[in-house]
Amino acid sequence: MTAPRGFVAAGVHCGLKAEKLDLAIIASTAAEPATVAGVFTRNQVQAAPVLYCREVAASGRARAIVANSGNANACTGESGLADTWTMAACAGAALEIDSEHVLVASTGVIGVPLPMPKVLAGIDQAAAELGADGGERAAEAILTTDTRTKIEAETVELAGGEVTIGGVAKGAGMMAPDMATTLAFVTTDAAVVPAALDQALRRAVEPTFNSITVDGDTSTNDSILVLANGAAGVEAASAKDLERFTDALERLLGRLAVALVADAEGANRVVEIRVGGARTNAAARQVATTIANSPLVKTAYRTGQPNWGRVMGAIGRSGVDIVEQRIAIAVSTAEERVEVVRGGLGVTEDLEPLGRAMLADHSVLHVDLGLGPGEWTVWTCDLSEGYIQINASYIS
Amino acid sequence: MTAPRGFVAAGVHCGLKAEKLDLAIIASTAAEPATVAGVFTRNQVQAAPVLYCREVAASGRARAIVANSGNANACTGESGLADTWTMAACAGAALEIDSEHVLVASTGVIGVPLPMPKVLAGIDQAAAELGADGGERAAEAILTTDTRTKIEAETVELAGGEVTIGGVAKGAGMMAPDMATTLAFVTTDAAVVPAALDQALRRAVEPTFNSITVDGDTSTNDSILVLANGAAGVEAASAKDLERFTDALERLLGRLAVALVADAEGANRVVEIRVGGARTNAAARQVATTIANSPLVKTAYRTGQPNWGRVMGAIGRSGVDIVEQRIAIAVSTAEERVEVVRGGLGVTEDLEPLGRAMLADHSVLHVDLGLGPGEWTVWTCDLSEGYIQINASYIS
Repeated sequence: MTAPRGFVAAGVHCGLKAEKLDLAIIASTAAEPATVAGVFTRNQVQAAPVLYCREVAASGRARAIVANSGNANACTGESGLADTWTMAACAGAALEIDSEHVLVASTGVIGVPLPMPKVLAGIDQAAAELGADGGERAAEAILTTDTRTKIEAETVELAGGEVTIGGVAKGAGMMAPDMATTLAFVTTDAAVVPAALDQALRRAVEPTFNSITVDGDTSTNDSILVLANGAAGVEAASAKDLERFTDALERLLGRLAVALVADAEGANRVVEIRVGGARTNAAARQVATTIANSPLVKTAYRTGQPNWGRVMGAIGRSGVDIVEQRIAIAVSTAEERVEVVRGGLGVTEDLEPLGRAMLADHSVLHVDLGLGPGEWTVWTCDLSEGYIQINASYIS
Repeated sequence: MTAPRGFVAAGVHCGLKAEKLDLAIIASTAAEPATVAGVFTRNQVQAAPVLYCREVAASGRARAIVANSGNANACTGESGLADTWTMAACAGAALEIDSEHVLVASTGVIGVPLPMPKVLAGIDQAAAELGADGGERAAEAILTTDTRTKIEAETVELAGGEVTIGGVAKGAGMMAPDMATTLAFVTTDAAVVPAALDQALRRAVEPTFNSITVDGDTSTNDSILVLANGAAGVEAASAKDLERFTDALERLLGRLAVALVADAEGANRVVEIRVGGARTNAAARQVATTIANSPLVKTAYRTGQPNWGRVMGAIGRSGVDIVEQRIAIAVSTAEERVEVVRGGLGVTEDLEPLGRAMLADHSVLHVDLGLGPGEWTVWTCDLSEGYIQINASYIS
């Protein structure tokens, strides 16, 4: 996220995790505060940094994000909130900015107090190491059970010139977005007023972060924060520019979201579930989400079990009115497309091609309800022994 | 289910499964047809035998149930319905009863036509083997991935004398009841008019079969059928007798339901989730069901990970209004009770007793929302590698 002009970042190890980087700072170097927008978990149990960031985001202005992994600072009560304020104050002092311009994010184990001496020392160290080349280490410092960093950048030509958007995200588990999921930090050198930035983020997040699910569990700490510092000297103000900017933001978030699914706990493949022919987009989304959260469907993708009855079962219990006799199902990969169900009935007894297509790194499941123009796409992954092993042994 | 007077049963192998018993008949020997009540899956994709049994159950009278495992006869269209009718006709002829008094149930793989010659030969063989000692083999013949039979009996003293209720069930996977789940067949020698039997079944099923979940998936074939043949010469007619009868039915279904959870695919333990202090029973049920379907909570019970943050996260995303600061959580077993959360905060840093209590064969999770008198209990099991392995290799 240091691809846009006027942003620096750093990632350090402060001791929250055994050996890995665990504290990051991302900061704008522009003279004026950046505009900020955020979307946050709809889980009613919300971590201290989420409660805090909602207020900063509502103010519309910020200069920096400090984030730690290894500890979620959730279910920690008043002292947890005080720790978040202390992190913001410490980062403000180290960066010589107002502490109310510091956003704070935490991810990791729930219900354990932050070891503040380690955290504060880490903030001082990260502030001292900030640089335009710190993006990769910052991306690494926010990971939990992720196996790799997720960094993306987009450029888009506006009327006044080119602007850049950069972003990082962490995911791995407890992933079923409601308002937003996981942690993602986005920077841009475009100038965007707070209300427009907020609108762009809310539109871009629906078909991307809000359309992925790993296990149906929504975390207490999910947050996406966007900082726009205007360092490109180009403002996204006209309707056309805001449209282009939002489209670019959506592409960026879409790539980050699918990268989260691909690196989810125990995941062997991305399963893209495209539901069409629904009466409304909302109905299509409900069917796609039900299929995506079905443990039986997800387990079938573990080994390519050509078990389309499980998909029919999920469609039938989704709560959306369907007509069994109109349902069509197909599976496709980059190489082939396999028709599976037509008119609610299996089209072939040879299920080997279906099983093969389910084993692709990125396998697409097409469901046509045959009832209307509504459509939606949700991304998930297979459910494997790896998910069990990670979550049976990791305190998260 | 041959414990009540006037019922016979048989289980045979007809070739739907490789070596195991796969076809059962349960029949009343009373002169008059028994009264019948049934509850069925709310999945909109419904198997042919479910569509058929709804009509027989609505008529209020039946004499026999014919059931097969190994093939669900679901998503099989018009020819699937014809196969169900043929099964009823064949059983009617073999038992010398009207075919409209024959209930039909199927469970197993979806979308494959029944091999009717095998099924019809099996029906003839089972009809020839019917006996009062056939209950165990009938219970065995309806199993799919279950590892053991589930048979229960209850006696209850009514004004006119003692009556007996017997029942069998199969479960194993795709288990999240909406109207009912899995297959269960109940017999009783009480005389109960159809409307009263229906009411008793609907009341008894809510806190039992409709309060268990293994994976949140609802099958296309779920059915519970009750036959009351009056062979005890005792009628449950008064309000007091019907109350006693319903309570006994509820105890029977409760034991069968928990037995299904204990033998669920890959299950190592039963997790009983008791939610209290909710504003309404419905709210308590929603919270309990959300916890019970959380893969993260279920995986924590795999190895006794003392990760109460996952329970807090599930409560917070349940859709029920909660106050984080009022939540209390405890875990108990037959031997001990461990307080975990009070006022939304962890009560101790020593999590070893919690982890130990989570590893009991039957571990109870107590959640108090601190908001009202509403309460509900849901039973589930841990999520293990065994569930993945079974469902990644079994066409069901």
